[in-house]
Amino acid sequence: MAALVECVPNFSEGRNTSIIQQILTPFFTTPGVKLLDYKPDQDHNRTVVTIMGEPGSVKRAVIEAAGTAIQHIDLKNHRGAHPRMGAVDVVPFIPLQDYSMAEAVELARDTARTLAQQYDLPVFLYEKAATAASRENLANIRKGEFEGLAEKMLQPEWKPDFGPQSPHPSAGASVVGARMPLIAFNINLNTKQLEIANQIARSIRHSSGGLRYCKAMGVELKQRGIVQVSINMTDYTRTSLYRVFEMVKFEARRYGVEIVGSEIIGLTPMEALIDAAAYYLRIEDFSLNQVIEKRMLE
Amino acid sequence: MAALVECVPNFSEGRNTSIIQQILTPFFTTPGVKLLDYKPDQDHNRTVVTIMGEPGSVKRAVIEAAGTAIQHIDLKNHRGAHPRMGAVDVVPFIPLQDYSMAEAVELARDTARTLAQQYDLPVFLYEKAATAASRENLANIRKGEFEGLAEKMLQPEWKPDFGPQSPHPSAGASVVGARMPLIAFNINLNTKQLEIANQIARSIRHSSGGLRYCKAMGVELKQRGIVQVSINMTDYTRTSLYRVFEMVKFEARRYGVEIVGSEIIGLTPMEALIDAAAYYLRIEDFSLNQVIEKRMLE
Repeated sequence: MAALVECVPNFSEGRNTSIIQQILTPFFTTPGVKLLDYKPDQDHNRTVVTIMGEPGSVKRAVIEAAGTAIQHIDLKNHRGAHPRMGAVDVVPFIPLQDYSMAEAVELARDTARTLAQQYDLPVFLYEKAATAASRENLANIRKGEFEGLAEKMLQPEWKPDFGPQSPHPSAGASVVGARMPLIAFNINLNTKQLEIANQIARSIRHSSGGLRYCKAMGVELKQRGIVQVSINMTDYTRTSLYRVFEMVKFEARRYGVEIVGSEIIGLTPMEALIDAAAYYLRIEDFSLNQVIEKRMLE
Repeated sequence: MAALVECVPNFSEGRNTSIIQQILTPFFTTPGVKLLDYKPDQDHNRTVVTIMGEPGSVKRAVIEAAGTAIQHIDLKNHRGAHPRMGAVDVVPFIPLQDYSMAEAVELARDTARTLAQQYDLPVFLYEKAATAASRENLANIRKGEFEGLAEKMLQPEWKPDFGPQSPHPSAGASVVGARMPLIAFNINLNTKQLEIANQIARSIRHSSGGLRYCKAMGVELKQRGIVQVSINMTDYTRTSLYRVFEMVKFEARRYGVEIVGSEIIGLTPMEALIDAAAYYLRIEDFSLNQVIEKRMLE
């Protein structure tokens, strides 16, 4: 098996099509890299890109795209709904196949070092690549955003892991790291009451006493006239999808509310779904090696 | 994507390790072929092999292994619990990736022709490769087994598709075809009464009024003191695993019996399980393109 890594770089440009195209170019043209998805968001003024490929090639493509982004994006004039502190805002690496988390962390550090050297950019490491517990959570690092960055970086605890001690004048700073695949799993409820979705979100998410690898919040789906528990599963190998689903079901029951459907947004590893099938079909001793596609990838 | 085909040749030797090893050699050594599994069964005196790979290479390896089997296996002295009529008893091809059923049928016919010419062996085509409705079902072709073959082949309707009009003296005849991946899915019940498993099998299987792509029978699991509905799913894309599972559950209820677990024997396509996950998790509009492994295979 060849080593494969996924990377989901977030660039702070979601409106100027010409700039977005230039940033994307290396993801279309670098051999050994496959562009899986990209979503320019005008409200967020941000483009989230999903690529996968041979680790060295993925790194090269990201460095090249970052160069274009740093050249063209000026955070001083950037407005958008999504929090951001850099032109190349976040770059997570996700090990997919024949590649350990330790190797993904090494790739993240290596990429961060090159970004810092090549573009004179401060770079912070986060998640599994973090060098301090306070830097594991992206939200902590990004708090204050681009506008607060210069002042924040004066504090010794916010010295970047690589690069200069002050923000890049137009491109701010970047956050690079390694993490597990994240599954965006939303569960829809047959009620209009946002408060019910929020209550359920509170009871299932880690931060308020719920499941260890689960983030959740309530969201209104105005067009459909229902609400949703919007969930991020941050480690599906430890916190299973079916467990979250069953919890939402029994929590909803106390409000006389039922699940009407769910959605998976973007990509998911097959294992997360096969795990759910094995639970509901009560399959004893199932091994992923029994899945033809798993064997095809070997 | 490269074309990939699976092949599950059944050889009528399950006891003589040296002969089995010789038959298996081309599956270990042919470039472009991957040996996924092999199961010599002493009671059945039969070895079932699962390989996959590039279609031309798979054909070459099967032809070579068949040569060894025909040379070493003498059906006149063969005893075993499993019905058989040839040294190379059955050879189904299963399209896996970037390969249509029509192409698998062509590969089956091509392999059958070569087998017949090279080894002076009568070969029948079955399942999707069958040349008559009466030859779709393997059991129909094999009825009478090796011992009844010479007489059966005197009838005009049992003229083989390729090769001589009478059995090979020691190797009988072979059956070659193309089919969908078959999933062996067994459901265990908390009762010792075989009759209950048989009744449920009757109500879910196609042959007695049940689901179109489902074969089933009751089996005793003596060691565990329970019974099992032993199921073959012959087209999981049309008859879903979860549908069979839910049917067994509601049929069992009338006997006051419950499902205690299930097993998948051997290989399964990921789609069959993901389909079940999507049902139980009520995922709306899920696409297989959202599965990372699917994209990795592209």
